[in-house]
Amino acid sequence: MTGLGEGNTEYGRKKFKRSLSHFTDRITADGGDGWPVEAGRYRLVVSRACPWASRVLISRRLLGLESALSLGVVDPIQDDRSWRFTLDPDGRDPVLGIRFLHEAYDARETGYPGGVSVPAIVDVPTGTLVTNDFQQMTLDLATEWTALHRSGAPDLYPERLRDEIDEISEEIFRDVNNGVYRAGFATDQDEYEAAYADVFHRLDQLSARLAERRYLVGDHITEADIRLFTTLVRFDAVYHGHFKCNRNKLTEDPVLWAYTRDLYQTPGFGDTVDFDHIKQHYYRVHTGINPTGVVPAGPDPSGWATPHHREQLGGTPFGPGATPPGPPPPAEAIP
Amino acid sequence: MTGLGEGNTEYGRKKFKRSLSHFTDRITADGGDGWPVEAGRYRLVVSRACPWASRVLISRRLLGLESALSLGVVDPIQDDRSWRFTLDPDGRDPVLGIRFLHEAYDARETGYPGGVSVPAIVDVPTGTLVTNDFQQMTLDLATEWTALHRSGAPDLYPERLRDEIDEISEEIFRDVNNGVYRAGFATDQDEYEAAYADVFHRLDQLSARLAERRYLVGDHITEADIRLFTTLVRFDAVYHGHFKCNRNKLTEDPVLWAYTRDLYQTPGFGDTVDFDHIKQHYYRVHTGINPTGVVPAGPDPSGWATPHHREQLGGTPFGPGATPPGPPPPAEAIP
Repeated sequence: MTGLGEGNTEYGRKKFKRSLSHFTDRITADGGDGWPVEAGRYRLVVSRACPWASRVLISRRLLGLESALSLGVVDPIQDDRSWRFTLDPDGRDPVLGIRFLHEAYDARETGYPGGVSVPAIVDVPTGTLVTNDFQQMTLDLATEWTALHRSGAPDLYPERLRDEIDEISEEIFRDVNNGVYRAGFATDQDEYEAAYADVFHRLDQLSARLAERRYLVGDHITEADIRLFTTLVRFDAVYHGHFKCNRNKLTEDPVLWAYTRDLYQTPGFGDTVDFDHIKQHYYRVHTGINPTGVVPAGPDPSGWATPHHREQLGGTPFGPGATPPGPPPPAEAIP
Repeated sequence: MTGLGEGNTEYGRKKFKRSLSHFTDRITADGGDGWPVEAGRYRLVVSRACPWASRVLISRRLLGLESALSLGVVDPIQDDRSWRFTLDPDGRDPVLGIRFLHEAYDARETGYPGGVSVPAIVDVPTGTLVTNDFQQMTLDLATEWTALHRSGAPDLYPERLRDEIDEISEEIFRDVNNGVYRAGFATDQDEYEAAYADVFHRLDQLSARLAERRYLVGDHITEADIRLFTTLVRFDAVYHGHFKCNRNKLTEDPVLWAYTRDLYQTPGFGDTVDFDHIKQHYYRVHTGINPTGVVPAGPDPSGWATPHHREQLGGTPFGPGATPPGPPPPAEAIP
């Protein structure tokens, strides 16, 4: 499986294509790739704007890996040197000591010519990038990092449900997660309309499925829900207007809107979401589709806190013996 | 009063400013400006994309002036010679015989350096522009063209309500009709946010007013409703996304959405609205804010036909003795 993160996009091409992740080493329990799971050894670098990085933020919270895998958050606005630690004192990541994420890429491969993407996991002792393969990253947090999970951590990728999770995740990736980007970066009307049709065709299918059941697969939250959530939570803030996925807002689909609110209100989901970072990134970085850089003041976010009534469908957020995570570490709380 | 039409906009300035109409002659019953009301003498030129021109389209329909004042419809896409008759056979207006609206402007004033705007009324015998003053145009259709009104035509500007109509029209013009343009063409975040605040502050006031009464002033449709309608009907199709007026869609304000649907379903309103022209114009002409020229496929327009239940508030579309207009002339029907 290849990973494709935020930053690895090519603008100005006729057809939008997400490039492949270059660094696909895995951090595993047995250290087979040379990177054993170890508390305190690695640093996760994310942009809170990025849906691909946000998957990892959510998994890390649900599994209680905050102290085992520390977190660096980059500025939502890249410059020509890509992702920057300009939110930190002196503009340096306090653990890695670097100003730009590309420094960790350079430490891994001299003169690496590809894009610098988040999420990225960096080996702290050497300052070297280990992986930017976000498709594998959350699966490994769920299945390889188990020794470091909190007590009461859910099983986000249960063995018996993996085929079903993989299948629906593939559809969600193609038509939803990446579909909105294909629509938004289209420079050709037909290409845009094809992507728009894919997005809403798939969302309609998912809405029908979720009308009957609280979560996508099984009776509890899994990897599949995390992957759908990160696009849906951004839908009205950026994909509806900026990416022209405007058949309807998320809030106009009662099922998907209640489903997304349900997850948002579950500890580990909404507490990772920074709408300011999301809007600043999309509207200020994509000058090819928003030349003025003006960031919309809407939409009104007050609806996120309203009751969703999804518990009536049966199912519970976490399976037997699993519990919700506590609040995020104070340093990671969204202002 | 000065008129300000579509086309008279200046892009690339720090602050968006709508320029004044240059040609403010009036066509009146007594012909005081040299232009007497006369059946068949004048031609109204509009873009169906344009909210300012659409006022005149609606008034003309409600008053039954279709045969007295003929209609030319320009292509929704201007080129560097501005509005074009490219929808007509051989690209020429069949009555005026011109290919570009600027030819009527040139006939009026040689070397006129200003913008070419719609709506425009042209004197057919001389091919000369009479007026592009759209603020006055609808008032004159209502009050000066009375000899040519259909039987059963409503009084859209009743004497005893004029102060109230003028006052609310001024607020609607500043904060709503032109407010959305100030938001959309802002190149500066503060300027945008100020305009956005004006738009929604005024819409909230209008929504509260219209919760209690079917129409803005009095018990029947007036000029004030026409002026508010032309912006509201475009709101979700273009102002919400393209102009970033995205606190909420029109469809999310139950009062304004029902009010706009009520008018839309009234003969003379919805039958003038061409959503295709509207979206093509805004998204393809304003390359400064939509460089790709891709036109969104949404929003879903099916809601326009749904029941509005506004008759429960009392009031009727037209006053005693007045009737709805018949269907539009076949040549003017929207495909």
